[in-house]
Amino acid sequence: MRVEELLRDRGLAGFGDSLVNFLYSLAATRKYGRPMGLKVGNRALAEAVRRSKFRELLPRRVDRKTMGDYAEALIAYAWLRRLVTTDSCVEILAENVDSPVDAFTDLLKTVMEALKGHEGEDC
Amino acid sequence: MRVEELLRDRGLAGFGDSLVNFLYSLAATRKYGRPMGLKVGNRALAEAVRRSKFRELLPRRVDRKTMGDYAEALIAYAWLRRLVTTDSCVEILAENVDSPVDAFTDLLKTVMEALKGHEGEDC
Repeated sequence: MRVEELLRDRGLAGFGDSLVNFLYSLAATRKYGRPMGLKVGNRALAEAVRRSKFRELLPRRVDRKTMGDYAEALIAYAWLRRLVTTDSCVEILAENVDSPVDAFTDLLKTVMEALKGHEGEDC
Repeated sequence: MRVEELLRDRGLAGFGDSLVNFLYSLAATRKYGRPMGLKVGNRALAEAVRRSKFRELLPRRVDRKTMGDYAEALIAYAWLRRLVTTDSCVEILAENVDSPVDAFTDLLKTVMEALKGHEGEDC
């Protein structure tokens, strides 16, 4: 996967937006044992990007909204390829569900590892 | 399940909002073979409620937003209890993905059947 491809069309980030909100809501729902609907903002996603190695792969000048889109697109890319599952993502997010920055930093790290392993297999 | 319980707190409708957008986005993504992010509006959900028997269970005077919330809460309630699966919902929605009213009318009917079967088992 080349990082430029992630935002080639808006579809991946668009699907990722719905996926990320769903995963995060499900993580909170399971953690607290009662249904909750949460939205993850670009501020938290952008900070999670900065704290993970994903930042190094992105263009130098990129605003917060675009960083959020990249994060959503990357998670969607790995999930659609079944490199991560709904349950594995939810488990990671639930560990730090009160801190979206920490939760998504951990998820981005896991997703990047999964992609690295996958690309290794391709070679 | 008593219909009054569905909106007793906002959590179920809130979780349902993220679930419904995710299911609909995944249905479109699978149908068209490329990632898409879609949001389902209250107008479509309210019309789907009117076309299904679910309408008969709701209070007589209820606005469009509340009808949408009821639809989201009902789908979330059945999904969280594993009476319907992600895949079964996505399959139903994908059949009429270009017409959200038809897609969600079919989904609400299926969800109501699943709940009826489940309540029957409880007796």
